[in-house]
Amino acid sequence: MAKQIVQLYDTTLRDGTQQEGISFSLVDKLRIVQKLDELGVQFIEGGYPGSNSKDAEFFSKARSLKLKNSKLASFGSTRRTNIKAENDDNLLTLVDAGTEVVTIVGKSSEPQVINVIKTTLEENINMVADSVRFLKSKGKTVIFDAEHFFDGFKANKAYSLEVLKAASEAGADCLALCDTNGGSLPEQIVAAIKEVKKVTGTPLGIHVHNDGELAVANSLAAVSAGATQVQGTINGYGERCGNANLCSVIPNLKLKMGIDCVTDKQLATLSEVARFVAEAANVSLDSHLPYVGASAFSHKGGLHVDAIRKWVDSYQHINPEKVGNHLRVIVSELSGKGSIIFKAEELGINLSGQSKEAKQLLERVKLLESRGFQYENAEASFELLVHRTKPDFKPPFELVDFMVVIEKKRRTSTKNDLDESLSEAMVKVKVNNEIMHTAAEGDGPVNALDQALRKSLLQFYPSLAQITLVDYKVRILEESIGTGSTVRVLIESTDGKANWRTVGSSTNIIEATWLALADSLEYWLIKHKQ
Amino acid sequence: MAKQIVQLYDTTLRDGTQQEGISFSLVDKLRIVQKLDELGVQFIEGGYPGSNSKDAEFFSKARSLKLKNSKLASFGSTRRTNIKAENDDNLLTLVDAGTEVVTIVGKSSEPQVINVIKTTLEENINMVADSVRFLKSKGKTVIFDAEHFFDGFKANKAYSLEVLKAASEAGADCLALCDTNGGSLPEQIVAAIKEVKKVTGTPLGIHVHNDGELAVANSLAAVSAGATQVQGTINGYGERCGNANLCSVIPNLKLKMGIDCVTDKQLATLSEVARFVAEAANVSLDSHLPYVGASAFSHKGGLHVDAIRKWVDSYQHINPEKVGNHLRVIVSELSGKGSIIFKAEELGINLSGQSKEAKQLLERVKLLESRGFQYENAEASFELLVHRTKPDFKPPFELVDFMVVIEKKRRTSTKNDLDESLSEAMVKVKVNNEIMHTAAEGDGPVNALDQALRKSLLQFYPSLAQITLVDYKVRILEESIGTGSTVRVLIESTDGKANWRTVGSSTNIIEATWLALADSLEYWLIKHKQ
Repeated sequence: MAKQIVQLYDTTLRDGTQQEGISFSLVDKLRIVQKLDELGVQFIEGGYPGSNSKDAEFFSKARSLKLKNSKLASFGSTRRTNIKAENDDNLLTLVDAGTEVVTIVGKSSEPQVINVIKTTLEENINMVADSVRFLKSKGKTVIFDAEHFFDGFKANKAYSLEVLKAASEAGADCLALCDTNGGSLPEQIVAAIKEVKKVTGTPLGIHVHNDGELAVANSLAAVSAGATQVQGTINGYGERCGNANLCSVIPNLKLKMGIDCVTDKQLATLSEVARFVAEAANVSLDSHLPYVGASAFSHKGGLHVDAIRKWVDSYQHINPEKVGNHLRVIVSELSGKGSIIFKAEELGINLSGQSKEAKQLLERVKLLESRGFQYENAEASFELLVHRTKPDFKPPFELVDFMVVIEKKRRTSTKNDLDESLSEAMVKVKVNNEIMHTAAEGDGPVNALDQALRKSLLQFYPSLAQITLVDYKVRILEESIGTGSTVRVLIESTDGKANWRTVGSSTNIIEATWLALADSLEYWLIKHKQ
Repeated sequence: MAKQIVQLYDTTLRDGTQQEGISFSLVDKLRIVQKLDELGVQFIEGGYPGSNSKDAEFFSKARSLKLKNSKLASFGSTRRTNIKAENDDNLLTLVDAGTEVVTIVGKSSEPQVINVIKTTLEENINMVADSVRFLKSKGKTVIFDAEHFFDGFKANKAYSLEVLKAASEAGADCLALCDTNGGSLPEQIVAAIKEVKKVTGTPLGIHVHNDGELAVANSLAAVSAGATQVQGTINGYGERCGNANLCSVIPNLKLKMGIDCVTDKQLATLSEVARFVAEAANVSLDSHLPYVGASAFSHKGGLHVDAIRKWVDSYQHINPEKVGNHLRVIVSELSGKGSIIFKAEELGINLSGQSKEAKQLLERVKLLESRGFQYENAEASFELLVHRTKPDFKPPFELVDFMVVIEKKRRTSTKNDLDESLSEAMVKVKVNNEIMHTAAEGDGPVNALDQALRKSLLQFYPSLAQITLVDYKVRILEESIGTGSTVRVLIESTDGKANWRTVGSSTNIIEATWLALADSLEYWLIKHKQ
């Protein structure tokens, strides 16, 4: 059997932004395009230039990008009812976007034509055919997104196939069959594709949504049935329950089905791409995402950790390095002494000959976890705990006092007009029996405390100046207790070379922040023996 | 064709707690059992009584529960190597747990036997057979979980089938085939089940993990191939990438495949069960979860919202009420005027004749969203915005000043020993030109501000005493800016009858909290015309 070729079509920048809370800046969009190009995706849908000026500006800037593997596609709809294609503003905007590839969406379902566009079945077919023909006349590669195709196929099969034939005869280069409402089963996808193949030889694509939690399975089923293009988004971002997740589709195609849609080297960038896009979208990357999530190859239960020490593949379906991820052992209240020793070894600390220390450490972890600390994502704080169990441990600094004041005055009567407020922190820190008392202002109380702490320590440890925060997260525990809940703060810091994460917990958010901040700086000082 | 019967087997309380960060209190476990019973799940795996005393205590308490639909199952492993089943502590604990159903897990994969248990292939088969026989002799219904079955089937098919035959001949009532590492494709599941059916007539179950994002599809494929029991967890909780998500499996079976695994009435409790379990697990329910997530039937794009106004089913695959969910229109920067009018109508405010007001409101929403506010989850704050655009609007109270002080003194040198800290807030509020100046202490600065604000307003509006907070969430925006980032606070409040949600945003967490708190109280006062 000849090797099947499958093209990847990414629509993170267009359909992905339909997800609640996701939007990208112009700069981020351009950076994402370059990441997707490195990943080896064939098509990148950049946006809907007819719908907003930000997308139009994107296409104008994107012209200067030098892409190695990818082609940009602009997206729009078929012409409006009862006008000529060449007079349709939206189609003209698509031509102006200047991309080699243009994707247009049209209705391929009878009830949608009748109930939503409210035109005749015939006029809808003309809209599809005219629009494809017009874009072909402008020299474009045209992908036709057959919206609601699978639902239409159930309602009036003949009509849905008619629409595809019209697009195909007008010159479409690919017919992307859409499960727009995301409710189809894999066997329905396969059955419909078989029928489509009887009426057209045009290459088929698949574009599905995840409303039945079957988007990845439906994409793979379509490929098995002969589709040669898979449309999806990074991390499955998209409206409602999301689009087909390319971060699962790609490794499934390559590692499970033997379809070389990307090279080994490209596949190894997958986790990095997933993190990058999540950061640009300003959402946390779901740690349970297959292949690319932080928990995808993490092991918590004592029995599993023991098994992994015997045979690394005992609880993983692939070598995580293939997708740029890695195995992690989680230290938690469920951990046995074995996990603690394993974890300490991972950190380069040998505890195996000192099982009393390991036991003490385990007790300490359990106590602190019961107070809201969590070391699963804060390995630097865990490493400090290991150091602190040593009898000869001497911390590089100690806090004596702190005080934070937040003031807000003369608020105007117009709510939500945020006038200025003042936040100040005073910090007293002890280093080698010397006391430093400083104060600083900040952009909010947390920032003020951060500024004051750094200011006081810099006098003793000037090298701390290179440390910056890259992430600051707050998680309310026992949310039901309201404003009196325990708060967990996670901080990620960097010195430009390495990143590390620390944790603090308290009912007082300022104190929780202090603990995580202090751990962050103390960790670096100990690591660098300052 | 006779109607296929499928049993549901829930392992949220056991396998679900293998997920990082998930654990349940004893009380919560008992409450979850009752919810699952109402949902109509046939089997509820309560825990691993041999692994910890909390699970053993659960089974002792669970005896007094009156269940209408469900049977409890206790979980454990086959006997250890080279001892008699009747001398195995773990098996004896399972008998003592007192459940009618016992599930035991054993290896069904050659490489696992060799590399992990490190015993002979023959002894492993004896371990399985002896353990099943022993539990049957105690009158139990025995489900055998064939761990790593599908991986074993790939490595040494004959041996994996031998293990199943041994369990079946020893009297197992069900053989649950496990894709423990979660890496199988649907067609591999189907092919293996076909082979299994050739060697045993014992009913088959399916227990899969989601490492390829295929757990739901693999469960459905197994049912199509003849499996009659599906094991999974609520919301797909479980180690690494989770278990098969029963909240997707159940509606897919019933609504898409026509298999009546629960009644219509039971299905309508699904969203409530999902929320309840998430709350007990103390994690936010992922809003993008199929069927049960808050976004599963939400619409953001202007075009889609227009289509829904014409035909409600244009962008939904089922009627959300069937699973106890509902359609939502999201107001966001992408919204058109149509969405704002639609949303306002949903809130009982007619804006359709006042399109100038609608336009002003849309501008206001866009401005505030650019400052970090988000109305998607804060409908009460949105409603206040609507009121505030009215020229004759008069707020029930106004803030003049506030000041918050957080002090921490004489910290001991042992890090993480959380000694007491002091948080105080002073608030000046104006109601009808009268000024009230009060102060309060709190458990952290946020709580202090909350206390002080309530104290000052209660003198004017005593009925506010019935309002309590049910949820308080903090989200850092632009996380990369560190401690100077903008913070969004979401608050959910209740008066015992209704719940409502409000939002605040600022670089100062105290101010963001203030805005959301003030909105929460103002909303209630306006609603109740105080």
